[in-house]
Amino acid sequence: MRKGEQTRAAILDVALELASRNGLEGLTIGLLADRMSMSKSGVFAHFGSREDLQLEVVKLYHHRFEQEVFYPSITETRGLPRLVAMYTRWVKRVSVEIASGCIYISGAVEYDDREGPIREELVSMVRAWQGALLRSVQQAIELQHLRAGVDAEQLVFEMHGLILALHHDARFLRNPGAVERARAGFERLIEHYRNPQQSQDHQAA
Amino acid sequence: MRKGEQTRAAILDVALELASRNGLEGLTIGLLADRMSMSKSGVFAHFGSREDLQLEVVKLYHHRFEQEVFYPSITETRGLPRLVAMYTRWVKRVSVEIASGCIYISGAVEYDDREGPIREELVSMVRAWQGALLRSVQQAIELQHLRAGVDAEQLVFEMHGLILALHHDARFLRNPGAVERARAGFERLIEHYRNPQQSQDHQAA
Repeated sequence: MRKGEQTRAAILDVALELASRNGLEGLTIGLLADRMSMSKSGVFAHFGSREDLQLEVVKLYHHRFEQEVFYPSITETRGLPRLVAMYTRWVKRVSVEIASGCIYISGAVEYDDREGPIREELVSMVRAWQGALLRSVQQAIELQHLRAGVDAEQLVFEMHGLILALHHDARFLRNPGAVERARAGFERLIEHYRNPQQSQDHQAA
Repeated sequence: MRKGEQTRAAILDVALELASRNGLEGLTIGLLADRMSMSKSGVFAHFGSREDLQLEVVKLYHHRFEQEVFYPSITETRGLPRLVAMYTRWVKRVSVEIASGCIYISGAVEYDDREGPIREELVSMVRAWQGALLRSVQQAIELQHLRAGVDAEQLVFEMHGLILALHHDARFLRNPGAVERARAGFERLIEHYRNPQQSQDHQAA
């Protein structure tokens, strides 16, 4: 990696940390320059504008999410084992983020009615992840791990709700036990949607 | 109501609207003065500081939430009918707020690691509502509408998750059908936790 690329990567790393804590809208070139002990124009040399920087932060976040949650999960057997792996890693990721905040969750509130490329990027990345979950649920139905006729979108909606409640209760209310609640909720969910003929073979984690 | 009180109430009304849209941290005396066609000092005459104003906005929001969701629900029969009424009105309230935003939900993200009286006020109001839901679930267990041994906190956690997913999908992703998903999720939840001996008598809405 060339020197310029290294500096750019180091700036992005700090930018992601700042955006996780203060929100994407709380990310300013001035704050970043200060943290990097650089001049503002030094930061601008790597990112044409604050918006470009924000977009790169969203992409970096998504990349890390994929590395930690998505890619390791798709090596699992298709169907329920893969779905369980996706959810388990998602919970793990969010529970690590309790200290720092989650850009998808804070971004959803920051950009719910703020139009533009950052909102579009966030929406498309959340949709990509929901699409991956949806495919995994559909495969679990096709493989008869889950009952025929399960509403896959409903199941993904409910999984997402558990993750949002986990983030809310652990990060905002600082309640202990939210991770366990998110896991117990998912077990109950899968128990409800599971194909009874397969229930001996495929236990949720 | 005296003139001064009327003006104060009118300012608070606009402040709540602005805070719902832009967040409590997006609420400034300048913006408010502009919207009210008043001077900044005119606004300050009614609220000692920006923080006082923000606190009053949180209290007004909570008051309206109670008026629309809590008080009409506690006139319902104790137990499952009351719990169903609380959830149904909660969904209705959030679905109206899709256009404007919900201060509890955006506030949870804004103040998750910002200490101080606004955070304390928000936390105590969210806890008050969760406490009311918890009592209602416990009554439903005592009255044997729900099964003995139901984990009341788990049920409240899952109800809250459905509400958060509704708000996220409708307001951020702008997905149609989120209200129906939140309702269907609750029905499934209650079906799971219902006392089977009582299932003929108490149908969830």
